[in-house]
Amino acid sequence: MTDAPSRTRKRERTRKRSDSGSTARKIKQAEWRRLRSPYPPMGIVSEDELEAIHTASLRILSDIGIDFLDETARGVLKQHGADVEKGSERVRFDPDMILQYVAKAPSEFTLHGGRPERDLVFGGNNLNFASIASAPFCSDLEGGRRDGNYADFQNFVRMGQTANIIHLFGGYPVEPVDLPPQTRHLDCHYSFLTLSDKVHHAYSLGRQRPSDAIDMLCIARGETRDSIVERPGMHSIINTSSPLRVDIPMLQGLTEMSSHGQAICVTPFTLSGAMSPVTISGALAQQNAEALAVIAFTQMVRAGAPVIYGGFTSNVDMRSGAPAFGTPEYAKAAFVGGQLARKYGLPYRSTNANASNAVDAQAAWESMMSLWPVVLGHTNLVMHAAGWMEGGLTASFEKFVTDLELLQGMAAFLQPLEINDATLGLEAIRDVGPGGHFFGTAHTLERYETAFYEPLLSDWRNYENWEEAGSPDALTRANRTYRALLEEYEAPTVDPAIDEELKAYMAKRREDPHIEM
Amino acid sequence: MTDAPSRTRKRERTRKRSDSGSTARKIKQAEWRRLRSPYPPMGIVSEDELEAIHTASLRILSDIGIDFLDETARGVLKQHGADVEKGSERVRFDPDMILQYVAKAPSEFTLHGGRPERDLVFGGNNLNFASIASAPFCSDLEGGRRDGNYADFQNFVRMGQTANIIHLFGGYPVEPVDLPPQTRHLDCHYSFLTLSDKVHHAYSLGRQRPSDAIDMLCIARGETRDSIVERPGMHSIINTSSPLRVDIPMLQGLTEMSSHGQAICVTPFTLSGAMSPVTISGALAQQNAEALAVIAFTQMVRAGAPVIYGGFTSNVDMRSGAPAFGTPEYAKAAFVGGQLARKYGLPYRSTNANASNAVDAQAAWESMMSLWPVVLGHTNLVMHAAGWMEGGLTASFEKFVTDLELLQGMAAFLQPLEINDATLGLEAIRDVGPGGHFFGTAHTLERYETAFYEPLLSDWRNYENWEEAGSPDALTRANRTYRALLEEYEAPTVDPAIDEELKAYMAKRREDPHIEM
Repeated sequence: MTDAPSRTRKRERTRKRSDSGSTARKIKQAEWRRLRSPYPPMGIVSEDELEAIHTASLRILSDIGIDFLDETARGVLKQHGADVEKGSERVRFDPDMILQYVAKAPSEFTLHGGRPERDLVFGGNNLNFASIASAPFCSDLEGGRRDGNYADFQNFVRMGQTANIIHLFGGYPVEPVDLPPQTRHLDCHYSFLTLSDKVHHAYSLGRQRPSDAIDMLCIARGETRDSIVERPGMHSIINTSSPLRVDIPMLQGLTEMSSHGQAICVTPFTLSGAMSPVTISGALAQQNAEALAVIAFTQMVRAGAPVIYGGFTSNVDMRSGAPAFGTPEYAKAAFVGGQLARKYGLPYRSTNANASNAVDAQAAWESMMSLWPVVLGHTNLVMHAAGWMEGGLTASFEKFVTDLELLQGMAAFLQPLEINDATLGLEAIRDVGPGGHFFGTAHTLERYETAFYEPLLSDWRNYENWEEAGSPDALTRANRTYRALLEEYEAPTVDPAIDEELKAYMAKRREDPHIEM
Repeated sequence: MTDAPSRTRKRERTRKRSDSGSTARKIKQAEWRRLRSPYPPMGIVSEDELEAIHTASLRILSDIGIDFLDETARGVLKQHGADVEKGSERVRFDPDMILQYVAKAPSEFTLHGGRPERDLVFGGNNLNFASIASAPFCSDLEGGRRDGNYADFQNFVRMGQTANIIHLFGGYPVEPVDLPPQTRHLDCHYSFLTLSDKVHHAYSLGRQRPSDAIDMLCIARGETRDSIVERPGMHSIINTSSPLRVDIPMLQGLTEMSSHGQAICVTPFTLSGAMSPVTISGALAQQNAEALAVIAFTQMVRAGAPVIYGGFTSNVDMRSGAPAFGTPEYAKAAFVGGQLARKYGLPYRSTNANASNAVDAQAAWESMMSLWPVVLGHTNLVMHAAGWMEGGLTASFEKFVTDLELLQGMAAFLQPLEINDATLGLEAIRDVGPGGHFFGTAHTLERYETAFYEPLLSDWRNYENWEEAGSPDALTRANRTYRALLEEYEAPTVDPAIDEELKAYMAKRREDPHIEM
């Protein structure tokens, strides 16, 4: 990672002067497109079983309740009919009341990117892949594992912009700890808005940070704080502090985002055996209770505000207490989470998760143990779709690229088979006849260039050729591809006046950040 | 691989004398059990689309026909009403006639192992994992990639016997080229029958080899050539020589197997773009035509003979012609193959396939791109479930173990969620309350030991501990686990009289093998 940023920046300048379409590409990747699943959503529990989880979660909400740590939020909850225990943070919800508020949330909504092609729909059978977020460390082969920093942050943003299969950003790919914490968000949002034109994320860490993010979004998109409500361009993940607690910064941030029409994704982080029951069904009941409570709260803040039902139920290793991801239990929870979201008519978020320390076979099988359920279960927002390692502790440049291959493969799987007289090819089969081959037939020649998915990383050379090339394994190839993708990065066009205005905003905000630490 | 066989053999002797239950296990693996999917089979094409593929394949059979290269087989076909072209190998089938014969095949059947616990059911929602078969090369970290040999063959049989998630053998794990080809099958079947008690496979390479395999099976199981018909214990893969051809040794072997009630698995190897049309739907139409023709033939040989519908449609890399596996196209073909098999009420065979040259992330993601469709599509016989590399050229000991993890994970996914008052755990959630944790609750303590899938290979230690342990990646860990599994191998009890009889049979057969080469 020593010289990549400067080389890349030079490239950006060159590219901006040239016609971007004419640039020779080293990496052949899938085209940018919005994805929809042609297959019906898969579930793994019956309607009765789903109802049992639902009923249990309503009992948690009415009998046990949730602690909302923010006083202002409790005021809003009380005002809208929730039962706020006197002298306590505990809030209980009448089942009918909570379902009434959940029903106000839209079943589908659009987040707007920097240009119309980047607009994304959440809900229904729409599938959106978000790049990794919130890792404290990052890594690549050359530089090893290191603290997050702004240079790596920016390179991950460039990777996310370059990779067509990545639809949006899930948060800071890696935490840039070399920037001052009180103003870090200004730099990060400047990067999102100038290095990329894809939908991005604002952290709900108090009121001021998302407020600044909204201001900067308004500048970049030529909107006002009123008009941006109708054209939301950001989402924000709200994690509950499971079990059954929502902390102050999250509630403040949520309130700022929802009141300005930006999307909230409510995601209880219910690790079965640690922060939730050791049974997956119990963990799901708790997940559902926490999700419903906070989703209802978003609708009290602003009826119709876009919100996503997030599920992140996995299990711990009961021998060590270590969190585990991409497990069979995770797969089941991911499917049921989707069933629950659909029950309430809400868009669904799940995750491409794994707990591997290396970009090896484990990283891939755990990711695939996550991805298949996530895709077949009609997840609308797939968080951490590329780059996540070690249960989220490290953003890996090479894992980012191996994940791109998995995501592209899943996208190709979602292209329905074409079945008609031409594709059934009886004439070709007749012409070739028993014992022949199809390499040179007209039927093949007309189609071979686009017939099959072309991999980004899979190496199909025979063993001898592969060995002669130095026996490069998937990790080695991913490293080369990530370097090449960075080389191919092209910055979006940014109006110089907007750039000036963003810079001026940041300069002013730096003078007195008002950030509670 | 230098000293493992001799060490293992010594262990066998020790173990036989001790109570096998008391032996301390180094490797904790899933228990032996038969698997059934609790989820409905997933398909990806509509009934109309399936019907279109079906209709196209019937047209191939009636208009174009299939070349049956064996004259005796053509006689059987003619005798049963197929249209055998005079002076030619070409056979055409009336649609009604072929469906009438296909309908004679059982929708479900049992193959018997060396003891009743090893009996396996094929059909319905039963899932059976067969270990790798037919690789010319084998490999492990220490010995590298090498020609197949009998010592490695036997170690793979020991691995297949030791691994509980492996239900049966799919064929010779690796070809023992150090044994004389005319009598190799005798040694291999002796190994299957004495080193393991699991269901195994006989190659349909002419009549004599499967005939010997049946004789040896009869000796081992105390059956006769008449009684073994009712208690089949072997299967045999019949690959067509796509497109539209069936060769002589396969037809002779099939005839010997089917006439003695042993199972046949008909598997056209229809690589889209090479031996079948460049369109997956065309390749599937051809696959279906070839499969139906040979399945009908098995029922002409013996009505009711057990037979499996095999699908192996994948695609080639159109730039190089290299076969590719675990691709999105492969995933789609695997799903549709299952839909076709169910349409005819036949058990289904598919494959855990990949084209990787290394046991790396590619090996895992391609395997998972195969396995999910294979499992969700209700495959009854999963061939090459563990150990397959390089599109089948190499049997890898380490890949065998990484695959065991994937198979165990899929088996755990097939355990339905338990949803009832006890598992929903409202009392535990109430007791822990907001902000607590579940590690010490009674609800957790009662369940934690068996709550979650325990991995064979996934390493969930935190990065620091993992690094301190030498940063072992999945390949390194798989190597250790394969060594440990071999150490834990226990030979089944073999009656000394049966052993003598098998040896005498082999000695006699070696005198004059009658094997056409």
